[in-house]
Amino acid sequence: MDQQKEAAACAACNHMRRKCPPNCIFAPYFPTTSPSFDYVYRVYGCSNVGKILQSLPIEQRKMAAESLAFEAEARIRDPVLGCVGYIYLLQQHLAQIDRDIQRQRRRFMLPVISHRHCLHR
Amino acid sequence: MDQQKEAAACAACNHMRRKCPPNCIFAPYFPTTSPSFDYVYRVYGCSNVGKILQSLPIEQRKMAAESLAFEAEARIRDPVLGCVGYIYLLQQHLAQIDRDIQRQRRRFMLPVISHRHCLHR
Repeated sequence: MDQQKEAAACAACNHMRRKCPPNCIFAPYFPTTSPSFDYVYRVYGCSNVGKILQSLPIEQRKMAAESLAFEAEARIRDPVLGCVGYIYLLQQHLAQIDRDIQRQRRRFMLPVISHRHCLHR
Repeated sequence: MDQQKEAAACAACNHMRRKCPPNCIFAPYFPTTSPSFDYVYRVYGCSNVGKILQSLPIEQRKMAAESLAFEAEARIRDPVLGCVGYIYLLQQHLAQIDRDIQRQRRRFMLPVISHRHCLHR
């Protein structure tokens, strides 16, 4: 019976080799089978994640755990830029779209002007 | 003289109340006056940041330290979303631009067509 309880410990308590307490701060967001906890543990450490979750109202903890897992996975995949790499990509994408829009404006401005000119004849 | 050396310890060694070693992994990126180290320490902890920096070639460590500082500051400012909040904002901005482009295409398609029609008369 004790073994069954131990097997059901959350990923964080499993990692810390402790019994998962009933009010465990990690359990609702990092269940035993959570594939992301390893990333979160390696990047932030259990203690820092616990502090962040504890500082938040319960209804915000799920989103915080998800964003921490996302950032941790990004940092493991790209230890230099982490999540900031996505921001750079999105900013480059926005800059490219801005250049495209400017080019399209220059390209289509003339036909629109000559169309107006044509109407006024 | 020893006091002078202690005063020149990097932000991480200052925090750990240790003498800054000559080959300190933190010193080049988190000098004594570094305002970002407090964020980095609170979010990741010294040990995790040291591990990430140590795992990288020297030429990539500055960028890694800067991206870690950026993400840590974002997490302190927004403990729920952290850096992911910026990604959501950029994605929303891209989606808005996409809607604007579609609207402009629908708006300007007719004049362009009637201009061509006008030319063929």
